[in-house]
Amino acid sequence: MVRIAVLVSGGGTNLQMILDKAAAGKIPGGEVALVVSSRKTAYALERAKAAGVETAVLRRKDFASLEAFDDAMVALLREKRIDLVVLGGYLTIMGEGFIRAFAGRIMNVHPALIPSFCGKGYYGLRVHEEALARGVKVTGATVHFVNEITDGGPIIAQKAVAVMEGDTPEILQRRVMEEAEWILLPWAIAQFCQGRLHIEGNRVRIDAEKE
Amino acid sequence: MVRIAVLVSGGGTNLQMILDKAAAGKIPGGEVALVVSSRKTAYALERAKAAGVETAVLRRKDFASLEAFDDAMVALLREKRIDLVVLGGYLTIMGEGFIRAFAGRIMNVHPALIPSFCGKGYYGLRVHEEALARGVKVTGATVHFVNEITDGGPIIAQKAVAVMEGDTPEILQRRVMEEAEWILLPWAIAQFCQGRLHIEGNRVRIDAEKE
Repeated sequence: MVRIAVLVSGGGTNLQMILDKAAAGKIPGGEVALVVSSRKTAYALERAKAAGVETAVLRRKDFASLEAFDDAMVALLREKRIDLVVLGGYLTIMGEGFIRAFAGRIMNVHPALIPSFCGKGYYGLRVHEEALARGVKVTGATVHFVNEITDGGPIIAQKAVAVMEGDTPEILQRRVMEEAEWILLPWAIAQFCQGRLHIEGNRVRIDAEKE
Repeated sequence: MVRIAVLVSGGGTNLQMILDKAAAGKIPGGEVALVVSSRKTAYALERAKAAGVETAVLRRKDFASLEAFDDAMVALLREKRIDLVVLGGYLTIMGEGFIRAFAGRIMNVHPALIPSFCGKGYYGLRVHEEALARGVKVTGATVHFVNEITDGGPIIAQKAVAVMEGDTPEILQRRVMEEAEWILLPWAIAQFCQGRLHIEGNRVRIDAEKE
């Protein structure tokens, strides 16, 4: 069994989608074993408890340095024998120690078609504000492995979403979640759990599914 | 009638697609009135003649300066009472005089989802080489109005295309043409000819089609 930790900061809609898919048997070979929140009051923690998943709170401000915070995170994930770390709307900075310790095993979802609207400063609603300001007619979401470059790691999956006349950033954000993020992320996790993802340089080769 | 000029440099596959759509009545309100080639031997000229469309050859090297070349182009297009200029694989640099003279009336197709893989140096096969090197799973094409920034003008239409395992730049280029460029460009031209495109800042508002 691939033991999955989901790192959260807020409401946990991505977490809920993963839990639902796991409960429905759509993530064979994987189990959500731990939810780590950067905030004590994150509603995602309630969702985890409701699903019977172990939780932990790890706050950057409780540590003297990013390095000490990083070490604590790595220690926690190792203690819980975590194989795959999924960032589900995780807004806290991660240090290089953590990224190196889990190289090729940290997955993130970005609400745009990388390399569009990504990199430093592009997170949350701002991504959609920028997409609308540029006037694109197609946007989408990307699931990728995390490396030391912000949004620069190997791409696992992408899905396009139409921009509509009259979209606000909020409306577009919701559509990208529903039509892309919530579909791509559980799919990518399932592929990982079945050993189908192979990182080759900055590309991800995916074994064909056998039905 | 909106009088359309198509500027070409090579084989003219985009031109052929436009001529075919026009012949099939899919570009109501518009007619291809002129084809201008930057090369005497461009096969696109044969395609134009076969369709009974007037042709002209205008070569940068026959002019002492970019400005003189630009002036000749603008003079030719004005003489032929051209309303819309379509770049169909046109590889010659255009000066600011030309771009200003036909502001909001020059249309280009770029073989990627702008703002990904665009700007200086990104043309032809190189766009697809870069997309494959970055490992994207979705690419596409963009039709946009041309302004003084390379690939920076208001976006009219975009369409996503899947990248497949084992794609070469050539295979991907062909798929993007067939699934996106050849569909988007005639559609965008038809919208222009029916007065449905409204440039608002760097965005293009498109009137809904009435059936």
